[in-house]
Formats: sequence, structure tokens, C-alpha cells
Amino acid sequence: MLSTLLNHRSIRRYKSIPVSTSDLNEILEAGTRASTTGNMQVYSIVVTTDPDIKEQLWECHFKQDMVRQAPVVLTFCADFNRFNKWCRQRQADPGYDNFLSFFTAAIDALLVAQNVAIAAEDKGLGICYLGTTTYMAHKIIEVLKLPKGVVPVTTLVIGYPDEMPGLTDRLPLQAVVHQQIYNDYTPEAIDAAYQPKENMPFYQEIVQKNGKKTLAQVFTDIRYTRNDNVRFSREFLEVIRQQGFMNHEL
Amino acid sequence: MLSTLLNHRSIRRYKSIPVSTSDLNEILEAGTRASTTGNMQVYSIVVTTDPDIKEQLWECHFKQDMVRQAPVVLTFCADFNRFNKWCRQRQADPGYDNFLSFFTAAIDALLVAQNVAIAAEDKGLGICYLGTTTYMAHKIIEVLKLPKGVVPVTTLVIGYPDEMPGLTDRLPLQAVVHQQIYNDYTPEAIDAAYQPKENMPFYQEIVQKNGKKTLAQVFTDIRYTRNDNVRFSREFLEVIRQQGFMNHEL
Repeated sequence: MLSTLLNHRSIRRYKSIPVSTSDLNEILEAGTRASTTGNMQVYSIVVTTDPDIKEQLWECHFKQDMVRQAPVVLTFCADFNRFNKWCRQRQADPGYDNFLSFFTAAIDALLVAQNVAIAAEDKGLGICYLGTTTYMAHKIIEVLKLPKGVVPVTTLVIGYPDEMPGLTDRLPLQAVVHQQIYNDYTPEAIDAAYQPKENMPFYQEIVQKNGKKTLAQVFTDIRYTRNDNVRFSREFLEVIRQQGFMNHEL
Repeated sequence: MLSTLLNHRSIRRYKSIPVSTSDLNEILEAGTRASTTGNMQVYSIVVTTDPDIKEQLWECHFKQDMVRQAPVVLTFCADFNRFNKWCRQRQADPGYDNFLSFFTAAIDALLVAQNVAIAAEDKGLGICYLGTTTYMAHKIIEVLKLPKGVVPVTTLVIGYPDEMPGLTDRLPLQAVVHQQIYNDYTPEAIDAAYQPKENMPFYQEIVQKNGKKTLAQVFTDIRYTRNDNVRFSREFLEVIRQQGFMNHEL
């Protein structure tokens, strides 16, 4: 099993073979075994295979080809709508229209998503997460008709791989693990953490191609810019409010 | 592998056997293979085994016995501190002091946490998530000395199980999965989703013991109340701001 975890790579090219309903259900079932706060299961999974709806999701996800190509798109949502409806149907007054409840539901959804990713990979399928989900949450809400109480937090595409990329590099374990308490990074520790990556020809090429001086500048100036982050922050916070998770009155 | 996922149960009683460093490192290594946004790895894991610090964390986590009993407490943090320091050391201007960046880092941390949970279980260890992490983030920040740019989002206790509880019930799969788009719940669908749970003697006893009329009331009136949720929401949002993730100026 550990080998499934250790061999994870994100797959961005897929064969046009569908995933069988029985395989998909087995994978989703394994997903729902993930830990969930108070066993409330405050999440939903939207399974999209319909080409027209996938096309609309593809627009949402910055037109990344894999959304069209992969046979299955799974949108994982923080969802208190179902729980709230249950409460109201049972003479109970739900107090889940606040940020903590949103975040609790997001945790639930993300743990399920990772279980689903692992179960899919264990079955020989490939997966890729779409970080664009939070950037474009307002559009995804329209496409998938998500009601109040529901916010998309991540997306997985799933299908049979049509590529086998190498393992992606990671920082040395000691760079992300702290013993007992947080040991803040000295300049030397930062160098030790990032130099192996910076010295890889793969990244040196990226720096050069982008006309930058350092790899860090590729991130700050091109890939994840302040402008985009601030714009998407405002929009995502507005989505959380509109979906009913920012009522902090007592 | 699927069997590891399908057999998950939260373990709340642990034997006083330590987890070996080599096992722990193997588990953490498997954790870091999880998908991460743009391969930025914007998370940290704090490994706490020291009894005095565990005692302080136990206070934070509402004095749940398992925090004292389990040999290892892992605090998973959204962490842009390391990445920001790297950027500044490389003539790059990091624009990651906003809510989107916090949420991106939280996703990273949560996917790693679930990989760690699965790797641990695959090795015969037991795990339990602590939802109290977000409620008491401000206190955990003090205990673990988390600097600006770092927010704890979840905690796992890990150790050798001293109990073997049965599998926890889950809602029927079709109650949490939607086909193509979100199919909002009719009153009948809500009944179908929750009645199997409500009819279990285990839950009927809980309702009775708590002097409530419905299981939903146990959640709204006792376990997860509006008062607590609103208070923890305000505190957690304040933590996110204090740790430097609410700058939305351009």
C-alpha cells in the first residue's frame, strides 16, 4: 500500500477509456471511509462525465486539457446544506452558517478527496488535482448548481493514464518536519532546503526560459502572483459569504 | 491497499509503546508524496513526542486523553513562512499574505495529513484526527511557537491501538454523491439518507441519554452549538489575520 502512496504522480494526459461504474463506486466508497468531524460527513462529491458539463468545467478550470480528456471529473464540496436540511426536518436549529463550519466541512471534503485519489491510483487509474477550484468557485457553483451551504474546495480528474511522468522532486524531509516545536528557518536552513531543487537542470531551464534570475521569481512573478492571489482571495471570501458561511452574529 | 482505506477506524486508546523513528520517518515520507499546489509544499508537520509539550497540547485539545496517551502527536500546519523566506532570500517578492494563499496551504497540509494517516494505518498503527485544532489554533500557535505565515489546521495522534472499535456507520453512498450536477435534497431524500442512522440502537441511546427528541438536536444543542461555532469562527479568522493571511490590498 505504501507503494501506492510513494508512486503517486499527477497525470495530465488520459486515454479515452471510460471508468466503469463499479470501479468508480468502489473508489468513492473508499473515499467515504475517511475520517469526518463528528461523523457528520459534511461534504458532497459531484461526479461529472457528461461531455457538455465537462466542457463548462473545463472553461472554469482555465481550459486545462485534462478536464476535457479525463473521463471523470470529481468536484469535492464542503457541504452543510444536507445536514442543515436534516436538522430543520428534525426540529433542530442548525448553527452552521459560519466560517468554522465552512472550514470543518472543507477538511471533511479534502480528506475524502485524498482517499479517493489513493483508491483510484491503487486501481491503476491516474489522477490530478485542480487548484483552480478555489479560484473559480463562483463559476463552478453556477455550472454545478450548488445551493447555499455548498462550496467547491477541490477537484480531481480521474482516468487511465496516457503518460508516465517521473516522480516529482520533494524538499528533504527535515525541511518540512519540525521536532517537538517549530524550529524557524535560518538563511542556511533555507539554502539547504531549496538548493537541491534549484540545482536541478529541469528547474534551471524553467528559470532561463522565463527570463528570471531565480526559481523563486518564477513563482512570485509568473505562476502565483500577488495580483492574482488578491483577486482570487476577495472572490473566494465573497463566495464563502454568499454560500452562507459568514454569519457571526449571536 | 483499498482494504487499509476500508478498515479505517479512529483509535482513541493507545498502548504505551513508542513508534520507532524509522517507521515514523517512512510514514512522514509517504505523507510528502501527496499532491501539492505547484509543488510548493506550503505546509509543515510538527512531531511532538516530549511529554511536557504533549501535556500542553492536551490542554489545547480539550484534555482529550488520547493526546497524552498516544506516543506521537502530529500538528499539520498551513505554512508559507518557509516559502516566503526562500523568496526573500532569492530577490523575489512573495504575494502570499492573503486568504487564497492560506487556503491553498491548508489544502496542501490536509492532503499530507491524510497520506500520513493511511501510511500509519498500513503499518498497523492507529490514528485519530483532532478537530479541536482549529478551535484552539491560537493556543497551539503559542505552544508550538508557530511564526507568522503558519497556521495549524489539523492534528493526528498516532500509536499502537489499545482498542479495536467496530467500523463507524456512513450515510448511503448515493446520499453524498451527485451525478453530473448537484441534485438538491427533497424531504424524502433527507429521510432516506438519515433514517438508517437514526434507527440504529447506538444513536437512539445517545438521543435518549441526552434527553433530546431527535439525533439532529444532539448535534445542534450539545455537540456543535451555534454559540461555540460563532466564537471559534471569530477566533480562527483572527488567527488567520494575525498569522498574516488577510492582506487584500494591491
